[in-house]
Amino acid sequence: MTGSNGSTAVSDQPALPKPEGLEGVVAASTALSHVFGEEGKLVYRGFDIHELAGKASFEEVAYLLWMGQLPTRGELADLLQRLGEQRPLPTQVIDVIRDLPATAAPMDALRTGVSALGASDAGQFDDVPDLDEAISLTAKFPGILAAFFRLRQGLEPVSPRSEHNTAQSYLYQLFGREPEEKHWRPSEVYLTLLADHGMNASTFTARVIASTGSDLCSAITGAVGALKGPLHGGAPSKVLDMLEDIGSAENVDRWLTEALDRGDRLMGFGHRVYKAEDPRAEILRGMAAEASTPDFFELSRRTEERALAMLQERKPDRRLYTNVEFYSAAVLSAVGLPGDMFTPTFAVSRVAGWTAHVLEQMSNNRLIRPQSEFVGPMDKKFVAIEQR
Amino acid sequence: MTGSNGSTAVSDQPALPKPEGLEGVVAASTALSHVFGEEGKLVYRGFDIHELAGKASFEEVAYLLWMGQLPTRGELADLLQRLGEQRPLPTQVIDVIRDLPATAAPMDALRTGVSALGASDAGQFDDVPDLDEAISLTAKFPGILAAFFRLRQGLEPVSPRSEHNTAQSYLYQLFGREPEEKHWRPSEVYLTLLADHGMNASTFTARVIASTGSDLCSAITGAVGALKGPLHGGAPSKVLDMLEDIGSAENVDRWLTEALDRGDRLMGFGHRVYKAEDPRAEILRGMAAEASTPDFFELSRRTEERALAMLQERKPDRRLYTNVEFYSAAVLSAVGLPGDMFTPTFAVSRVAGWTAHVLEQMSNNRLIRPQSEFVGPMDKKFVAIEQR
Repeated sequence: MTGSNGSTAVSDQPALPKPEGLEGVVAASTALSHVFGEEGKLVYRGFDIHELAGKASFEEVAYLLWMGQLPTRGELADLLQRLGEQRPLPTQVIDVIRDLPATAAPMDALRTGVSALGASDAGQFDDVPDLDEAISLTAKFPGILAAFFRLRQGLEPVSPRSEHNTAQSYLYQLFGREPEEKHWRPSEVYLTLLADHGMNASTFTARVIASTGSDLCSAITGAVGALKGPLHGGAPSKVLDMLEDIGSAENVDRWLTEALDRGDRLMGFGHRVYKAEDPRAEILRGMAAEASTPDFFELSRRTEERALAMLQERKPDRRLYTNVEFYSAAVLSAVGLPGDMFTPTFAVSRVAGWTAHVLEQMSNNRLIRPQSEFVGPMDKKFVAIEQR
Repeated sequence: MTGSNGSTAVSDQPALPKPEGLEGVVAASTALSHVFGEEGKLVYRGFDIHELAGKASFEEVAYLLWMGQLPTRGELADLLQRLGEQRPLPTQVIDVIRDLPATAAPMDALRTGVSALGASDAGQFDDVPDLDEAISLTAKFPGILAAFFRLRQGLEPVSPRSEHNTAQSYLYQLFGREPEEKHWRPSEVYLTLLADHGMNASTFTARVIASTGSDLCSAITGAVGALKGPLHGGAPSKVLDMLEDIGSAENVDRWLTEALDRGDRLMGFGHRVYKAEDPRAEILRGMAAEASTPDFFELSRRTEERALAMLQERKPDRRLYTNVEFYSAAVLSAVGLPGDMFTPTFAVSRVAGWTAHVLEQMSNNRLIRPQSEFVGPMDKKFVAIEQR
């Protein structure tokens, strides 16, 4: 910052070492889920994701993450009832969402709504995080997003119906009509697949915040902010942008060749941990085949096949595979969601995992407070401003 | 969760290993600040905190953290002008704060206000975090808190005056009258002392969120949530509670003896990193001597001396020293702040360091994504609900 030219460069920064980003460093132990990156395997509480996908409901998966085992019929009925009871939002939260401009990013609205929930006199989120709070927050996520989605279109929020499951309720509150099975079923599979994923950046954020003894809404507000980042959850709409830009299956080869020649990054491939196909991508591919139009699925499939072949040819050492974002785009657009609601919908699923991680952290808590390596100068002496 | 009895216990959790909380693990390199725990030394950008305390203004310290060097006279005047220009809050943010109940915790209101700022159409916080955003956010923190502080008393927020410095503006916006020098000077020293502190939990939270490519308000919203935790920044009001409960210097010995006999934790002593006196405690002791009433200072001093002696006697291996919270209580209550505004005032200072850390993270970014150790079961097979 020199003079009043509004320069935004940070000057006088010493050269920092290449950051490791805690890669490979074990930050916590967890019994919730694990990503076996080399094998392309995801496990929730002992269940390979293939054991659960399409068989377990989202509520069964949430119960599994929270409680460590699948619910009995009575336990599941009880959970569905409690979710239904907890869905309505406090008036204060709706008022806050109403104050936000229609141009706000839905993730900003979600983050603000969750924070406002923690500040509201619902009186539920002041104490040590517990299962009741996890259920309440998971129940309210769809409604916060749906309220913003409707208000930005000039529509009033829709009150939830207690007989809906989570996937049904989300679509009902978004669109204001009974969801068709061909829409809510793929949405539910999506919700089960994204519900947890080891020690990713947003989950880690939630655990760091919770480790200070802060409340559940603080932890989850932070997690929403982290998920927003394009290096974490904030990029699936870019897959849709890419597919829409390609336009049709016959354009795929030319479009991809030009993009790679320009050095552009192809969206929907590669992952920090997976060095094999993301198992969620495989399941979502099947969902996309069911839910998308034949043309859009053909476009997606062709793009995937050609992109993988070209990436293998051009970057053989990178081991780039289809990631979860690629077919998320097809599934979520097929059920009627615009691109800017993709990452928030990811959060509607992940809140189950985030809250389960916070409960696990609190069951055996220690403040997460790393060290830093100091690479700055030392022994500077203060000089009065007149002498500078 | 069994039946509908509202049980909140998390059952079927496997025994987790004792968490290390990343203690001693280097999570990032930084040139901003460092805590030399063994020596009881805190350095900002090469300056020992004793070089800066009482000499550098809060704005000089913020500039130092952001830019790596102390400002010239012209640069400081420019920064003060820009802070003055950036202080007024968007109407949407005030509306959001107005929607919160008067019973909300000020930290919840601050977290929600910062998040709402990121969602507002101020249009400033959508891009890659930069210095303009850091200045804007630092300028707005006092106003967000002051607005809530006044609204919860049924008073209207006060518009900031551009000629004030940060400490003056904060007190002016809180109390609606020109602050006396005997109040704003100790407040300013407090703000300089708390502005950064190595890789603490809230700073680390901000860097993890920023490392995903998310925006500055997301990162700082998360940091506010982390600072709220009693194991991090959320306990200084408990020192005040303790001192008020002791009541007078002659009660100190009896009160402390009874508390320690009961096994109670004394507030304001001990720190994860410092194994010597926190240098900030020493400086704040001097400020408290100036700002407090003689009686309250005597009570504080006597409590500190006797507590240190008793802790040394009872827990000789713990190396417990006075921490920054102890005299923060005396200084902040002397300037008229109630206990529940202590941690938020900490945030008014720390936002300078948080934003500087985010800028540093973005200057050399890599996603912070640790590993976890999986301690859960494996190879479970799905059983349909009818057979469970």
